[in-house]
Order: sequence, then structure tokens, then C-alpha cells
Amino acid sequence: MNEATRKGERTRARLTAAAATLFQRQGYHATGLAEIVEASGAPRGSLYFHFPGGKEELAVSALRESGARWRARIEAAVDAAPDLGAAVVAVCRLFADELAASDWQHGCPLATVALEASASSEPVRRTCAEHFTGWEASIAARLVASGVAEPAAQQTATLVLAAIEGALLLARVERSARPLEIVGAGLRALAGLAVAGGAPPAPAP
Amino acid sequence: MNEATRKGERTRARLTAAAATLFQRQGYHATGLAEIVEASGAPRGSLYFHFPGGKEELAVSALRESGARWRARIEAAVDAAPDLGAAVVAVCRLFADELAASDWQHGCPLATVALEASASSEPVRRTCAEHFTGWEASIAARLVASGVAEPAAQQTATLVLAAIEGALLLARVERSARPLEIVGAGLRALAGLAVAGGAPPAPAP
Repeated sequence: MNEATRKGERTRARLTAAAATLFQRQGYHATGLAEIVEASGAPRGSLYFHFPGGKEELAVSALRESGARWRARIEAAVDAAPDLGAAVVAVCRLFADELAASDWQHGCPLATVALEASASSEPVRRTCAEHFTGWEASIAARLVASGVAEPAAQQTATLVLAAIEGALLLARVERSARPLEIVGAGLRALAGLAVAGGAPPAPAP
Repeated sequence: MNEATRKGERTRARLTAAAATLFQRQGYHATGLAEIVEASGAPRGSLYFHFPGGKEELAVSALRESGARWRARIEAAVDAAPDLGAAVVAVCRLFADELAASDWQHGCPLATVALEASASSEPVRRTCAEHFTGWEASIAARLVASGVAEPAAQQTATLVLAAIEGALLLARVERSARPLEIVGAGLRALAGLAVAGGAPPAPAP
């Protein structure tokens, strides 16, 4: 890779990271392209060079980066925990600490854009859906590794992800770690039940 | 009340209802005041007469209306159900049907605006927080009426609300009722446990 290519990749990465942070904090529609370029420190003309599709293409790139980063964080916290219940509590605490440290601004990096833009942009919707599915798969894999059978593992993973996403929303709006703490404790109990074979039943057909 | 006052109240109600629908569908920042006036059918000059505080004041009014309407719907579904588990399933089904009927656009009427605007507008944040707290109180009251002791009732209510909010997000992004169906079934089992005295434990101090 030559120097020009490396420089181009760094600029692209800076634009993506700046967009990811701004989308996480204030959402898709409130974030302007000029604001992203300014926050990134990248040259003004570089945005359309790297993202000819404009804001939508940049959003897809930013969501991919955020989604992969959160998946890695979730998996690291899960791997470091002695059991699944402790892992869920650790993930909720990680998110609560990040929210508090950012003055309750850094919640889920996908949720705001997902709700705002999924009706108006199919690429944005699909990217968000893929990452939510990936996070869910990480949780389900850990449940299976703990001895929970399919499809209970998949169903419990959906409930765990939904509850954490909802808790992130409530914590941000309340400006309090309370919802994440309560949901972490509740899901710890639920994970224990799932491992013990008492996973939630399948929905009625 | 004279005719002019009644007409004024109708105009105000139309503006509020139009804003509530647009905010639910596309969020706060994507919705312009001209679009709200047009959707409402109200006279162009009426917006600042009824809402001198502009978009923020209109948003607070719209969120109050949406919040109260959803609370009434939640309470009606809960009152019609034979037990708490059935009530949770009924509420999830109600929301799934509404999402599907609106081409996956009508999710939670507060969540999008709450995530987008709670960092930038304290009145919007406070209004959303009050309504989430009110919905949680409705769920907790039903748990207490079913024999669950405090503080377990409050904690279970937080988990139920968080899981339903998360499921609404995932369902909207996936364009599928699946997350709401799975979460409904999981929460039905959890509600049964809570009533049987096995509510999730309090978070560690």
C-alpha cells in the first residue's frame, strides 16, 4: 500500500468515526455533512471522494463500524465473565458507565438512526437489522455454549437484546443508570433459568 | 365555551395530532413545521398562535397526547386480559398489529423523539421521561394487584417496559412481528414467575 492510499484510508476512517459519534449522540437528521467533515478534521473536499453516495453511504459505513465495535465489546465482556448471568450484568454496567460518562448521550450507536431512518432508507435499515441480528447471534451462541438448547437459546437472546436496548433508551431519557441496573439483574435471573432449562416458552402459533 | 374558542381548540387538537403522527413515523428533526401544518389542514398562521414556543412546544403537546393515548391502550388491554401474562402478550400483539398495518412505521410514539431530542431539549426529555414512568407505573400497579410485593413489582415493571420498547425497535427495523411475539411469550413466563414470588432480584448495591 503506498503513502497516498494509506492517507486516503486514514481520511476515510476519520470521516466514518466522526459520523458514528455524531449519529450516536444526535441522530441522523440533526447531523449535517459539514458538521461531520469539521468534526473529523478531514479536508472539505474529501467526503464525496470517499463517499460518493453522500450521507446515506457514510451512515452505512458509520453504522457498520459502530455495530462491529459494540459486538466486540459485548463479546469481550461476555468472555471475561464467569457465567452468562454475570456477563449480562457486566454488559449493562459497561453501557451504564458509558452513558453516565457522556452526560447520558452515548447510548446504543444504532438505535436512534434505526428509528429515524429505517423508513426512509433501505440501506440504513438493512445495516441496522444486520447488526442487531449479529448481536443477538453472539448472545445466542453463548447461551448454546452454556448448554441451552435451540430454539430456546435464540428466543432468550432476542429477549435479552430487546431488554438491553429498551433499558438503554429509558436510561438515556431518565438520565439514570437505574433501568440498566434493574434490567441487568432481571436478565441475570432469566439467564440462570434458561441454563437450568426453564427458558421462556415459544410464542403460541 | 363560545364558537371561536371551540374552533380554536379543534385547530390546536388537529395540529397536535398531526405532529404526533409525523414524529412517530419519522422523528423530530425530519419533521418540519410546514409539513405539520399541511398534514393537519389547519390555517397556516395558526401554529404560532396556538404554540408560540414553536416546534418544541408542539412536540411536548404531541408527546403528551401520544403518551396518554398509549397508556389508555395499555391499560385497556391489561384490564381485558384474564391475567398479567395474557395482558403482556395482548399488548405485544396490539403493537405488532399496528406496526404491520402501518408498513412498520408506527412504533413507540415517544422512542424516536426521545432518543433524538432528549439531549437537545430538556422539555422534550422531561415529557418523554414522565410518560415512560407513567407506563411503568401502570404495569407495576397491575403486578401489585396480582399479589407481587414492592419493590419486586417496580423492578419487574421496568424490565417489562424495557423489553417491550426494545422489541418495538427490533420489530420496526426487522420489519417483522417476530421480536414482539418472542418478547411477549418470554414476559408472560416472567410475569408468571413474579406472581409466584420468583421476581427478579434487586440489583446488587
